[in-house]
Amino acid sequence: MSWNIESSKLNKSDLLTNESLFFLGNGYLGVRGNFEEGYPEDYKSIRGTYINAFHDKVDIEYGEKLHGFPDTQEKLLNIMDAQSVQIWVDDERFSLFEGELLDYQRNLWMNQGYSERTVHWRSPQGKEVNISFKRLVSFVKREVFVQEITIEPIKDVSRISIYSELESDVSNFVDPDDPRVASGHAKRLSAEDIYEKNGCHVTGAETLETRMSVCCVSKTFSDKENHTYESNIEGTTAQETYIFDGEEKVTFTKRNVYMDSLRYGKNLEEKAIQLQEEVKSYTFNDFLKEQIQYLEDFWATSDILIEGDDDLQQGIRFNMYHLLQSVGKDPKSNIAAKGLSGEGYEGHYFWDTEIYMFPFFLMTNPEIAKNLLLHRYSLLDSARQRAKEIGHTRGALFPWRTITGGESSAFFPAGTAQYHINGDIAYSYIQYYMVSGDEDFFKKEMAEVLFETSRLWLEVGHFHEGQFRIDSVTGPDEYTCIVNNNYYTNVMAKNNLLWAGKVYDHLKSEDPQRLSELMSDLDADEEEIGKWQEAAEKMFLPYNEALKINEQDDTFLQKGKWDLDATPKDKYPLLLNYHPLLLYRYQVCKQADTVLAHFLLEDFSDQETIENSYNYYEAVTTHDSSLSFCVFSIMASKLDQKEKAYDYFSKTSRLDLDNLHGNTKDGLHMANMGGTWMGIVYGFAGLRVKESNVHFSPYLPEQWGSLEFNIRYRGRLINLKLTKGKVVYTLVEGKPVDIFHHGAEVTLESGIPVEKDTKV
Amino acid sequence: MSWNIESSKLNKSDLLTNESLFFLGNGYLGVRGNFEEGYPEDYKSIRGTYINAFHDKVDIEYGEKLHGFPDTQEKLLNIMDAQSVQIWVDDERFSLFEGELLDYQRNLWMNQGYSERTVHWRSPQGKEVNISFKRLVSFVKREVFVQEITIEPIKDVSRISIYSELESDVSNFVDPDDPRVASGHAKRLSAEDIYEKNGCHVTGAETLETRMSVCCVSKTFSDKENHTYESNIEGTTAQETYIFDGEEKVTFTKRNVYMDSLRYGKNLEEKAIQLQEEVKSYTFNDFLKEQIQYLEDFWATSDILIEGDDDLQQGIRFNMYHLLQSVGKDPKSNIAAKGLSGEGYEGHYFWDTEIYMFPFFLMTNPEIAKNLLLHRYSLLDSARQRAKEIGHTRGALFPWRTITGGESSAFFPAGTAQYHINGDIAYSYIQYYMVSGDEDFFKKEMAEVLFETSRLWLEVGHFHEGQFRIDSVTGPDEYTCIVNNNYYTNVMAKNNLLWAGKVYDHLKSEDPQRLSELMSDLDADEEEIGKWQEAAEKMFLPYNEALKINEQDDTFLQKGKWDLDATPKDKYPLLLNYHPLLLYRYQVCKQADTVLAHFLLEDFSDQETIENSYNYYEAVTTHDSSLSFCVFSIMASKLDQKEKAYDYFSKTSRLDLDNLHGNTKDGLHMANMGGTWMGIVYGFAGLRVKESNVHFSPYLPEQWGSLEFNIRYRGRLINLKLTKGKVVYTLVEGKPVDIFHHGAEVTLESGIPVEKDTKV
Repeated sequence: MSWNIESSKLNKSDLLTNESLFFLGNGYLGVRGNFEEGYPEDYKSIRGTYINAFHDKVDIEYGEKLHGFPDTQEKLLNIMDAQSVQIWVDDERFSLFEGELLDYQRNLWMNQGYSERTVHWRSPQGKEVNISFKRLVSFVKREVFVQEITIEPIKDVSRISIYSELESDVSNFVDPDDPRVASGHAKRLSAEDIYEKNGCHVTGAETLETRMSVCCVSKTFSDKENHTYESNIEGTTAQETYIFDGEEKVTFTKRNVYMDSLRYGKNLEEKAIQLQEEVKSYTFNDFLKEQIQYLEDFWATSDILIEGDDDLQQGIRFNMYHLLQSVGKDPKSNIAAKGLSGEGYEGHYFWDTEIYMFPFFLMTNPEIAKNLLLHRYSLLDSARQRAKEIGHTRGALFPWRTITGGESSAFFPAGTAQYHINGDIAYSYIQYYMVSGDEDFFKKEMAEVLFETSRLWLEVGHFHEGQFRIDSVTGPDEYTCIVNNNYYTNVMAKNNLLWAGKVYDHLKSEDPQRLSELMSDLDADEEEIGKWQEAAEKMFLPYNEALKINEQDDTFLQKGKWDLDATPKDKYPLLLNYHPLLLYRYQVCKQADTVLAHFLLEDFSDQETIENSYNYYEAVTTHDSSLSFCVFSIMASKLDQKEKAYDYFSKTSRLDLDNLHGNTKDGLHMANMGGTWMGIVYGFAGLRVKESNVHFSPYLPEQWGSLEFNIRYRGRLINLKLTKGKVVYTLVEGKPVDIFHHGAEVTLESGIPVEKDTKV
Repeated sequence: MSWNIESSKLNKSDLLTNESLFFLGNGYLGVRGNFEEGYPEDYKSIRGTYINAFHDKVDIEYGEKLHGFPDTQEKLLNIMDAQSVQIWVDDERFSLFEGELLDYQRNLWMNQGYSERTVHWRSPQGKEVNISFKRLVSFVKREVFVQEITIEPIKDVSRISIYSELESDVSNFVDPDDPRVASGHAKRLSAEDIYEKNGCHVTGAETLETRMSVCCVSKTFSDKENHTYESNIEGTTAQETYIFDGEEKVTFTKRNVYMDSLRYGKNLEEKAIQLQEEVKSYTFNDFLKEQIQYLEDFWATSDILIEGDDDLQQGIRFNMYHLLQSVGKDPKSNIAAKGLSGEGYEGHYFWDTEIYMFPFFLMTNPEIAKNLLLHRYSLLDSARQRAKEIGHTRGALFPWRTITGGESSAFFPAGTAQYHINGDIAYSYIQYYMVSGDEDFFKKEMAEVLFETSRLWLEVGHFHEGQFRIDSVTGPDEYTCIVNNNYYTNVMAKNNLLWAGKVYDHLKSEDPQRLSELMSDLDADEEEIGKWQEAAEKMFLPYNEALKINEQDDTFLQKGKWDLDATPKDKYPLLLNYHPLLLYRYQVCKQADTVLAHFLLEDFSDQETIENSYNYYEAVTTHDSSLSFCVFSIMASKLDQKEKAYDYFSKTSRLDLDNLHGNTKDGLHMANMGGTWMGIVYGFAGLRVKESNVHFSPYLPEQWGSLEFNIRYRGRLINLKLTKGKVVYTLVEGKPVDIFHHGAEVTLESGIPVEKDTKV
């Protein structure tokens, strides 16, 4: 079972959640797991098809708008719907919610990249059919979403009809009561007429404000000839009708091609019709074959094997699979907080990418990781512009949430105020360089991004009594906003500034021409670079002598403690039940903040401080954010709190599968999915990438029989297999390499396994 | 000139400003100084008539709405317009912007309570007339707005026609680009049909959401008989037409009666027609006589006489007069931030009332002052409700801006976070008690308000290391939001809590029955009261040893200093040019904060701290808020910085007359108007009300020949006359009383002037 996700009960309350869990995508296109045949009228469904980064701009309303608040927000759009296929058995319309379900099974196959529903249905009048619905969004031909429906008459059936639809009248989902979901601006796509061409149905649409266009070209065909066929277009709906008389099994294939102007420019419809033409001989299985090949390659490197816990094995694969389905693979896109699985957070890219999802790609699929960095790099000009809007005189301030670079956060205390996004992006660039050794990238994009973010830290912070201090920012913990000297922010800034200095020194000795070009482009001088180094050295990192912990910010420890035990369960998440001011007033954290900093930059604290901090903050953290469990799991591993590590890990690995946050319907928690992978690789296996090398401090959770996975590092592929008390490192690809095992250097040579003892 | 405000030039750029300056009102009804005859189409005018507290509720939109953010906002409405009267000279329509102005004069008579425009006009065709427009909003019959228009043919005039209008199709003014002005929801009044009854034009209207109603009954008549008359109703406009042939001078009187359901309940139209009937014999002069009598009484007590500076004399009277025009005199209303002079800040009541306007009424018209307190008391239940919405378990949190008690602030960092409103209200109750000695009020309303606000401080703050600390609030300075231990907030809370204890002790000994009733009503016990006292004693009041100043908050002094000198003039006010986060990051104040606390509660600091603090904060304050100058003037007086005191004072006294903030068009800065009075009485005369007595430390600004004013204190009327180096105290009314002059006790006996030396 660990290669598939299965649902064998039809439960009304799970329908919405399953739409997210069974979504299919390829990083470009995403289709929610809605039912082809539709739902009864009173059932809620979020029917959605999305193209990564395909968005409109909508106005942000403010009761009171201050300077620098963004006027508009980018918003991922739901596009034309090609999922629908009505099925009629004689004169009864097939519905899972009428008649009788004699058998029902739904599967998502993560090694083959398709989903399937099989149904044995008895109609209200007692007729019986078996129906199978397969669907696939191709990793190889990213524009293609293909469906296959097989209908097998079982009892008393004399006619099978299908109505395969293309619907251009679509809207986004709205929920005015949940701040995590959009509350308006549902209708932002202006649909053009549907028409028929080359035997396909074609429809285009344009966004109201950004004037981006999208088209879909759909064609349904069957494997049998003895049918009547009709093509109808009425209003916003095109229908292909097939009617079969007889008792034979019949299979329909519906091929839908989606293209958008962001990648395909003009004449989209022609191009999409052309692609339909190119794949006109492709059956579902032809697409499937390509898909399986693609996924074999993916899993060969990326899979994590766990012996001893099928549920977790399934959860982990599920999470990695959805990361793959959601990550943008072209320079126009990134990974949205909900991937391509739903509309939560409006399809925006957050720091989630750099801190929670990037590591998985970095260590398994570095070319995807690099693309994520290049996408951020493409936003650099917007970030410079944003810094100016705020009132800064130089540097770049990356938007807290965005698609193409415009700040889309409408609530600055937990949005724009999170300046740490700059440090997070710098961190991901540095990590990439340490893992890849990519000198060209280092000199070009990385140098520029590190310089521009460094200058911004000098704009934000200031020297005071021998320290460099950063005031009025918000750290990762959104229950404590607008504070001074947030430890996380300051230490990330320090790292950012230190590395800008390293880049400077390196360029000065290795490529002075590039350096002088860069300095001149940015109008920077040596004095400024000197200030960065001074700021890095003097960066104030709050520390409490009595508790021997890093303080979350200047005043966190002076606040009262929230009584978590006395808070009724239904008052969580707290942000939905208390005014933010009330939350700000307490030592209560939505998520890991200082603890996260200790994970990312452990060398700026000592082990005692890290341990004390972990224990302190754990007691005041609600984990109301899905970005929290994984960090606590990783750090529990580091601190040998193995039971806790395992417990937190379990919660990350099945957070969506078990709908632990109650809002999986709005989309999957992608950052947490990345966090699961990190819980294993950074947590149990203790991976840390340092400037000179890669380090492991592995142990096997006692609940498991073994654990095996690969990482890529500087052109090598390294396999780790953990068993009780042992780890075997094997260099699968590449030249010999030194790694560190529990602090001791180990040389790996190709194909020669090296066995080491682990902590138990 | 000091009794009138004059404008003798017609300047397009001043038109909007003059609409505010020449507004007429009586605390119930307010009419902006718009021109009867209207404006050319391309002229901007904010035509407005308002009834204090007559409002609708409108939705507040948020890009991201969190728990406890108010859904709706109260909004003062512009109501039906009765100002308009078209005038035709033969076949030419009179307009100030066509033909030739041979003479033009506009006056607001502050001793008589009316305004007048006189015009000698030559029409484009060369005909000449003198026209006088008088208008009055009656202090005695508050529903009445009366106009008198006299037209005197001068040259070549053979026919005079007027069209006197009542217009029901009105909207509020909107400006989407200014956060200080409403940006939407202009049309909130649903007008009923206009009809004629009893020879009057009648129209009613209802608000869309609050379902409040208002009506206006208008009647125009002339002093001559030889005319043709017509009454027309077309759409939303009713017109009375008078046409006179001949060369005689003719006078028209237009009587408009406004009533609203908040005060008059149902059948408004009948009641208003009835009132028209009652005053049907009243000419303009009859209303004027009553008005003059009313104002004689007002000025007899309230006037301030300055010898030696006519401009300031005028400015001061102007400010007091507008305070009188704007203050609500019934329990349904308070004073809006812009009074009844415009729509800025949506007609909301802020802390401006308690801290800036209340003192004037308290010391001159205590019955009006008491009404303001009773109005706040009427909001106590809403405030309890609001505390619950935030997540507090008990107590009351008064809304930052409101009309009938609903929090109408859409930006909590500079709204709801200003918990000091509770302390401000408590302060005004305490001041009232100290001045009036009103025991009944003390036991009932004051006790309840002080108890409920005290409990809230215990909800907001907490004990930490022997101190009581209040985290995550915003003080008066809105350039520094969401901070810990704002000195102003903490000291106001301390005062609030101390006085709750005094109330408790007093009731315990004097009226145990009331106490037990109150304790039972509030479900309070002695332990809780004990906590209030503990909190008061242990209240943390931030103090910096090095600078010997009170710190504005825990971390204010650690921040960087904004370079005010390097900031271009056009970047002020800063809030319109920089993102709030940027402002929060600096030592830069919009207005007096700690300095204000030192004024209000000087006994909690020593003189040295007060002086150092003044000098420190003065250097970092932009005075971008109109609430700032007056406080700096008062404190400069206290600190013997006389030149500064005078300089700041000058800016307060003519802030609107000279449009120093550039936005007088949206309404007058009422708090600053109260501040002018305070600048004299608390500043130059050094008034402080203390628990046992009233104190003066007077001096005469050297620019003046003399200064004279009265105050009411515990049933007495005391006159002060200052000349160079001298002050004469005279008890005008009431029993002998002890006062303090520069710290020394002085006994005043009726009618016996006591002369004392002053500082020079």
